[in-house]
Amino acid sequence: MDEKTLRQMLRDVRAGRLAESAAIDRLRNLPFEDLGFAKVDHHRSLRQGFAEVVFGRGKTPLQVAGIVRTMLARRNGRHNILVTRADKAMYAAVKRLAPAAKFHPLSRAILVERDPALRGKGTILVVSAGTSDIPVAEEALVAARALGNRAEAIYDVGVAGLHRLLRHREQISAARVIICVAGMEGALPSVVAGLVSAPVIAVPTSVGYGASFGGVAALLAMLNSCASNVSVVNIDNGFGAACVASCINRI
Amino acid sequence: MDEKTLRQMLRDVRAGRLAESAAIDRLRNLPFEDLGFAKVDHHRSLRQGFAEVVFGRGKTPLQVAGIVRTMLARRNGRHNILVTRADKAMYAAVKRLAPAAKFHPLSRAILVERDPALRGKGTILVVSAGTSDIPVAEEALVAARALGNRAEAIYDVGVAGLHRLLRHREQISAARVIICVAGMEGALPSVVAGLVSAPVIAVPTSVGYGASFGGVAALLAMLNSCASNVSVVNIDNGFGAACVASCINRI
Amino acid sequence: MDEKTLRQMLRDVRAGRLAESAAIDRLRNLPFEDLGFAKVDHHRSLRQGFAEVVFGRGKTPLQVAGIVRTMLARRNGRHNILVTRADKAMYAAVKRLAPAAKFHPLSRAILVERDPALRGKGTILVVSAGTSDIPVAEEALVAARALGNRAEAIYDVGVAGLHRLLRHREQISAARVIICVAGMEGALPSVVAGLVSAPVIAVPTSVGYGASFGGVAALLAMLNSCASNVSVVNIDNGFGAACVASCINRI
Amino acid sequence: MDEKTLRQMLRDVRAGRLAESAAIDRLRNLPFEDLGFAKVDHHRSLRQGFAEVVFGRGKTPLQVAGIVRTMLARRNGRHNILVTRADKAMYAAVKRLAPAAKFHPLSRAILVERDPALRGKGTILVVSAGTSDIPVAEEALVAARALGNRAEAIYDVGVAGLHRLLRHREQISAARVIICVAGMEGALPSVVAGLVSAPVIAVPTSVGYGASFGGVAALLAMLNSCASNVSVVNIDNGFGAACVASCINRI
Amino acid sequence: MDEKTLRQMLRDVRAGRLAESAAIDRLRNLPFEDLGFAKVDHHRSLRQGFAEVVFGRGKTPLQVAGIVRTMLARRNGRHNILVTRADKAMYAAVKRLAPAAKFHPLSRAILVERDPALRGKGTILVVSAGTSDIPVAEEALVAARALGNRAEAIYDVGVAGLHRLLRHREQISAARVIICVAGMEGALPSVVAGLVSAPVIAVPTSVGYGASFGGVAALLAMLNSCASNVSVVNIDNGFGAACVASCINRI
Amino acid sequence: MDEKTLRQMLRDVRAGRLAESAAIDRLRNLPFEDLGFAKVDHHRSLRQGFAEVVFGRGKTPLQVAGIVRTMLARRNGRHNILVTRADKAMYAAVKRLAPAAKFHPLSRAILVERDPALRGKGTILVVSAGTSDIPVAEEALVAARALGNRAEAIYDVGVAGLHRLLRHREQISAARVIICVAGMEGALPSVVAGLVSAPVIAVPTSVGYGASFGGVAALLAMLNSCASNVSVVNIDNGFGAACVASCINRI
Amino acid sequence: MDEKTLRQMLRDVRAGRLAESAAIDRLRNLPFEDLGFAKVDHHRSLRQGFAEVVFGRGKTPLQVAGIVRTMLARRNGRHNILVTRADKAMYAAVKRLAPAAKFHPLSRAILVERDPALRGKGTILVVSAGTSDIPVAEEALVAARALGNRAEAIYDVGVAGLHRLLRHREQISAARVIICVAGMEGALPSVVAGLVSAPVIAVPTSVGYGASFGGVAALLAMLNSCASNVSVVNIDNGFGAACVASCINRI
Amino acid sequence: MDEKTLRQMLRDVRAGRLAESAAIDRLRNLPFEDLGFAKVDHHRSLRQGFAEVVFGRGKTPLQVAGIVRTMLARRNGRHNILVTRADKAMYAAVKRLAPAAKFHPLSRAILVERDPALRGKGTILVVSAGTSDIPVAEEALVAARALGNRAEAIYDVGVAGLHRLLRHREQISAARVIICVAGMEGALPSVVAGLVSAPVIAVPTSVGYGASFGGVAALLAMLNSCASNVSVVNIDNGFGAACVASCINRI
Repeated sequence: MDEKTLRQMLRDVRAGRLAESAAIDRLRNLPFEDLGFAKVDHHRSLRQGFAEVVFGRGKTPLQVAGIVRTMLARRNGRHNILVTRADKAMYAAVKRLAPAAKFHPLSRAILVERDPALRGKGTILVVSAGTSDIPVAEEALVAARALGNRAEAIYDVGVAGLHRLLRHREQISAARVIICVAGMEGALPSVVAGLVSAPVIAVPTSVGYGASFGGVAALLAMLNSCASNVSVVNIDNGFGAACVASCINRI
Repeated sequence: MDEKTLRQMLRDVRAGRLAESAAIDRLRNLPFEDLGFAKVDHHRSLRQGFAEVVFGRGKTPLQVAGIVRTMLARRNGRHNILVTRADKAMYAAVKRLAPAAKFHPLSRAILVERDPALRGKGTILVVSAGTSDIPVAEEALVAARALGNRAEAIYDVGVAGLHRLLRHREQISAARVIICVAGMEGALPSVVAGLVSAPVIAVPTSVGYGASFGGVAALLAMLNSCASNVSVVNIDNGFGAACVASCINRI
Repeated sequence: MDEKTLRQMLRDVRAGRLAESAAIDRLRNLPFEDLGFAKVDHHRSLRQGFAEVVFGRGKTPLQVAGIVRTMLARRNGRHNILVTRADKAMYAAVKRLAPAAKFHPLSRAILVERDPALRGKGTILVVSAGTSDIPVAEEALVAARALGNRAEAIYDVGVAGLHRLLRHREQISAARVIICVAGMEGALPSVVAGLVSAPVIAVPTSVGYGASFGGVAALLAMLNSCASNVSVVNIDNGFGAACVASCINRI
Repeated sequence: MDEKTLRQMLRDVRAGRLAESAAIDRLRNLPFEDLGFAKVDHHRSLRQGFAEVVFGRGKTPLQVAGIVRTMLARRNGRHNILVTRADKAMYAAVKRLAPAAKFHPLSRAILVERDPALRGKGTILVVSAGTSDIPVAEEALVAARALGNRAEAIYDVGVAGLHRLLRHREQISAARVIICVAGMEGALPSVVAGLVSAPVIAVPTSVGYGASFGGVAALLAMLNSCASNVSVVNIDNGFGAACVASCINRI
Repeated sequence: MDEKTLRQMLRDVRAGRLAESAAIDRLRNLPFEDLGFAKVDHHRSLRQGFAEVVFGRGKTPLQVAGIVRTMLARRNGRHNILVTRADKAMYAAVKRLAPAAKFHPLSRAILVERDPALRGKGTILVVSAGTSDIPVAEEALVAARALGNRAEAIYDVGVAGLHRLLRHREQISAARVIICVAGMEGALPSVVAGLVSAPVIAVPTSVGYGASFGGVAALLAMLNSCASNVSVVNIDNGFGAACVASCINRI
Repeated sequence: MDEKTLRQMLRDVRAGRLAESAAIDRLRNLPFEDLGFAKVDHHRSLRQGFAEVVFGRGKTPLQVAGIVRTMLARRNGRHNILVTRADKAMYAAVKRLAPAAKFHPLSRAILVERDPALRGKGTILVVSAGTSDIPVAEEALVAARALGNRAEAIYDVGVAGLHRLLRHREQISAARVIICVAGMEGALPSVVAGLVSAPVIAVPTSVGYGASFGGVAALLAMLNSCASNVSVVNIDNGFGAACVASCINRI
Repeated sequence: MDEKTLRQMLRDVRAGRLAESAAIDRLRNLPFEDLGFAKVDHHRSLRQGFAEVVFGRGKTPLQVAGIVRTMLARRNGRHNILVTRADKAMYAAVKRLAPAAKFHPLSRAILVERDPALRGKGTILVVSAGTSDIPVAEEALVAARALGNRAEAIYDVGVAGLHRLLRHREQISAARVIICVAGMEGALPSVVAGLVSAPVIAVPTSVGYGASFGGVAALLAMLNSCASNVSVVNIDNGFGAACVASCINRI
Repeated sequence: MDEKTLRQMLRDVRAGRLAESAAIDRLRNLPFEDLGFAKVDHHRSLRQGFAEVVFGRGKTPLQVAGIVRTMLARRNGRHNILVTRADKAMYAAVKRLAPAAKFHPLSRAILVERDPALRGKGTILVVSAGTSDIPVAEEALVAARALGNRAEAIYDVGVAGLHRLLRHREQISAARVIICVAGMEGALPSVVAGLVSAPVIAVPTSVGYGASFGGVAALLAMLNSCASNVSVVNIDNGFGAACVASCINRI
């Protein structure tokens, strides 16, 4: 029931075409979304309003292509389309539908850019510790851009080689939001957060072995950060970090 | 070595009073902070620039009073002073030094307000699930205000009674940043984040028993939130959530 | 020793053909099941009386077919036959024996319906959060039907999009028992249970990554549910939930 | 906004006293509960409609008495009042307000019986393994009665002495719902569930030491029960088990 | 240095051919085993004295055959040779060397019986809960026999169907040592141990899913057994249980 | 129904005073224990036949004394009475009833020796690693004696000082069963078991700090022992180890 | 059997006073320590040769004093005496015996310096992150000195304020061994180890709350350090770190 | 900015070519490494100065060869090149570039020895418990040699067969640093450390099954070692242990 229907119902009441009790019954059972709840569906709008997102893992290339085709066919705006955790076969399938599609092999993300407008107000900076953290960092980078942000990245600046990190001090200070990606001991967010006053979104990665327990060591380290401007998302969740950073950057 | 000393050194070089190599030696070993690194010490400035914070737990009233006395004596600005995890004895000791001190028994925080200026741009809203989550929520609320933010709170809106939460929909939508505090199953942040596009800082509490494992159940739930605008801080860390929210609210 | 033998023994005692002490000796060592213990074997009756169940995982198609053949040959009633965690090869093998067999690809269950009678008194409703929870939810659905219940399902009603869930409020309220399937943060059972007074069986799924720890996050959330009408079964145990729901629905 | 107000609003629309757009605005922001959502507040009704419950732990006798006084003063029906995790001081305070209050020292529950009506249809049977499980079992027993059920208990029937359990076979078979309380290895629910076709609610207790990990051993055992009619609630959650059992017993 | 050398050394001392201090030096550094320590090497004797054992997992058929060839060539007695965690390829390779070799497909053990003598004094009984526990139970059975014991097995007597277990009461009572194998909730050892006064060796298996955590649920249950004659070995360690049982049975 | 009643029933059948079907009905529901099941109650006999045991923790001195009074009054034999985890107040209370009672302060056990007969065939040796493991070791020692065994102890022979352990090699070799108690890294059972062919019961203790996790480190080490004659009981369970050792020693 | 006895035995063999076989028997059972194994008892020498150590926790002042009295009375050298985890009452008791005793309140260690000689070759530097890590750091510092090392400390140089750490770069570079103490996210050892080529002994502390899990977060971070010169000791084990550092510093 | 640039800048100041404030600005933002911080980059020097290391896992043979080619081309010294966790395909690729390359199949390491100089002062001894620990032990051995140390190994000396270990007592005592590798119960480092005064680096391996939890059992045992000269590195981290041992051996 959209506003038009609601308006018609009130007119029917006024015109006596609809009994009072029937109107009350219909109102009582009014589906929630009929009350203009579209804005409640923020989740959809966040992801689909500015970028439509497909989580590729566990889907077949055919399934991914099917979803993308539907997205391309939607009338309400030309949004960017992002496929995360994709592979080459998915890319081939998507490319056939959308020749502009680009594959980012490091992050295994497919991006069909259709809306180049910048919606975030500043720069989102992605910083990562080791070379093996790059896939997660790249996922954050590509997603941040897909969501309408200016985004940059600094890689391979682990805390055991401070000078490499400190060399980028100015770029780090200039960011509006920082996404900090690290596996192993997960110390980077604490060090980076100590250099800036911007919010730092920490992303633990499952990189490491033995007692890293698939990223738990890094996750715990980040939750216990002695820096006060750090909050944390799930292990390997580069996309999630980009969503949080993007919603901060739009403020 | 402050800027003045540096300037003098350069003048000495120019005037030939200081040999080139001696100058290079001194520069090479220049203590880092001498290069105007005060801004690197963001951590201190974040906490102490706008509010000076004492972590009360494990300290004696005497120790707390001593630290507060030093803070009161500082010349560089009149900042708010916040003592977290305090008790009545600490309050008595602080009250003697700063008659304006107020004790917030729910959060067990002492606040000496000396700088009423608002520095955050919007409202930080603290939402909590059960009555037993209130101490952590209050800590976040008092800290958010101490850090120069407009802050409000909605309590007792657990997910098993949705209508109580939905009644506050407008207030929730109006917030610039939301701090969402929940123990037990930790589901509140997911539901709240689904209603807004603002960033949601989730704080798990150690409230619960049995398989809540001191807040681990809530922590895991929050890290796995299906909402994309949620990031997480440590268990019971109301103060930390306020710091993150505050640094977002100042952007 | 069945009832007939027992009766004969008593007659022998009465007739003096069997000494008192010999009778006592035989009674003392009476195998348990001889005392009409068939009803103790409730477990078998629960599963086999109304539906005969084969747990497919780890078995070869040949083994599955062998077990199904035995079941088909049993004389005591025509029960439904359910093979869980099956695959297409098993289906082919079963189909040859029982042409009525149907394969449910989402749940990977094979159902040979032979007894369409409804034994449960109301409707069992299966509610699930994400699309990836559907296999577990479907297993619950198919099993609930195989066990003689009217069963319906509502999918993709995660808590971060409340309006989608609330749209189904009436169907939810009408169920006699609800099975609630969710991975990730496992919040759905708490929200659903808050809307009804029916018992809610919560099934955590291993869906998620990182700190979901194969369903542990959802399991803990469900055990800590703030709703008072929730009880929990093992991770991914859709079949088990259907058994519990079915035994409630028959009351 | 109750139905009366809604009716008035429609009349105003019909009478032209209220503009269409103003009516739509008011409807759009209609607080949820105004649409007859009282039934959504099932949670309150479940606990408060039939019994009003106070969770005593962490409250002062004064606070408990204050809450009970409010409950006693409510006009909408005379419900039973239950205080769980109480102590003697709380009991003294409640006794002064409600002379009919009784203290159950084993479960540490206070019950003010004001509504002796039976609402459950059959008997809820509480079975427990060791003497140290009795406090949790008693909490379940008292709560089941407070919620309007006929309830019985069998204690000290651990699985290492089967004959003690089997002696009660008939009483066990006669129950409509069974609550099975066990610590240590948590095996009792599996054995009991094998004897009946009724639903069994398993409650792990924190009884045990060393590798019982505060009830985790029993919890895991129950989640992995080989019996198909077992579902589980949180560790030591006797009250929760009674709620689930009660809502099944009312079907 | 064997006894002969030692004797020679003493003779050299006596004959004056070896200086006192040189003798002391040699004695001081005497390798331990030279002192007749063969009996210290109990480990080898336990496994190899009565049965020589090869742990097959992770070895190639060639490697297994090589080890078996060496064992066959040893002169000190004709011991049984047992290869655990083997496969058909290993069996083929061993069969070529020892035509008497037999493969036990359930336990995946190869046994070359060369010494049929019984060394244990009573019967070792292996009891297991579910059909999926059989591989571990069979490993215990074959190993117990290889180590020189009379050994029997009872399978599929889970605690949710007590009558099946109780039917075997006399066989259970007659055993000298019992090995009790169970996955899932691991309750069987508690129930069996309650029926006998013999020592019960409990073996948790990794059978189960979800919150069985690869056998941890069963392991914890067994460590917390309320029966007083239960001790526990590692998850899936059927061979280890047989070793313990065998060393008890030889007393 | 005891044997006498059963006999009478058979006589009634023979005399025609009891109908066949009535007799069958009564037999069908015959309580289990009436069939001479006393021997099933092994658990009670194991503990109470040779020693009656009270678990002191969590009981008041009055409660302990009450239980002991009942035990003293029993007619069926004069068994040893053991109170574990006791304190001085309990001892005073027991001493008043049984002047022969002795308190073992290290193990906090009270022993009332009433039956000095040795029932075990060999010696049970208790070996422990550190001085802080002694309370658990002493509990095992006192319990082993109370259960009718010759028992000895060797303390403070940790694996980091091998010579101290090896000095006792002969005493270790002479034991029929060994109880090996160790906290921290729990290595002692592996080393001791390597020296003997007797069964070794390993008892992890909660001694240690940090990553010993209350005995989990030692427990895991023991479960993973590379020695093949080691089985394990629960953390700090000296009494349980003595029960297992005693039941082996009686074989 | 000391060397003298051994020598005598050889003489007896030579003189024909001892039969060859008798000598062999005695040699065969030679207690290990008789072969000059004093050096095997390295453990004692390490701790007692250079410092005698008492672990105070769980001991009474009387017990501590008794042990110290024995140590003071030993003839073999005048070693330093260290009591860790002590309190003021212990100090008073020790002070009466050894007036030179000093109490270090931060580390709660008592040191009786009797041997001021330096045995380590370089400086052991203790670095710690937060003020609450100081007790553990001080324990390491005092112990390092008691073990005969030159030792220094730098406190409060957490990684979120790098400039504070970098200010001490030269002192850090000059150390021969570094002990790095940190709680919370445990990142300090990685950063410090990146600045030097000396070995770094990392000590996690139990400082922190929530998801620090009593030091587990810091422990895991340190085990996963990306720096290659870091090894780790147990949580809060300042004394252990000093032992390791001291044994490196003596090389 | 290197020293030359700095010198030029000072000259420009002196010559008046550069304004004082401009110079201060440039100094304030001086990149850290420009101050001669090369020595800060210890991490690179440690690994690359003496040996250049490639972590093979997860890389393609092509990628490995590419990195090795760059290393071979470097001008600053001829360092050893080590590829860890390599396979035969990587070896073939490397061999083509560096004919001197050798593959160590046990450790799966490739070593291109180009600098045979010994930099460590003593011998590093690698000791391991079981045959399955050998791959990790070999990685430590090859890495220790690659880093310029004399290194030896003793394998298969588990604690359940002490005589095998004690046979090597002299070789063990002679080592300057010991790397002790063990899976399962992880007891070896405690026993070895008790025999020597050298530092022992303990390496837990993931060898074992069931409750070894991928090396956690061994890790915990090592962290809780009762020997005072043990520190620990991550599970399976043979290379890391070699780095720590090497940096101790160079002192």
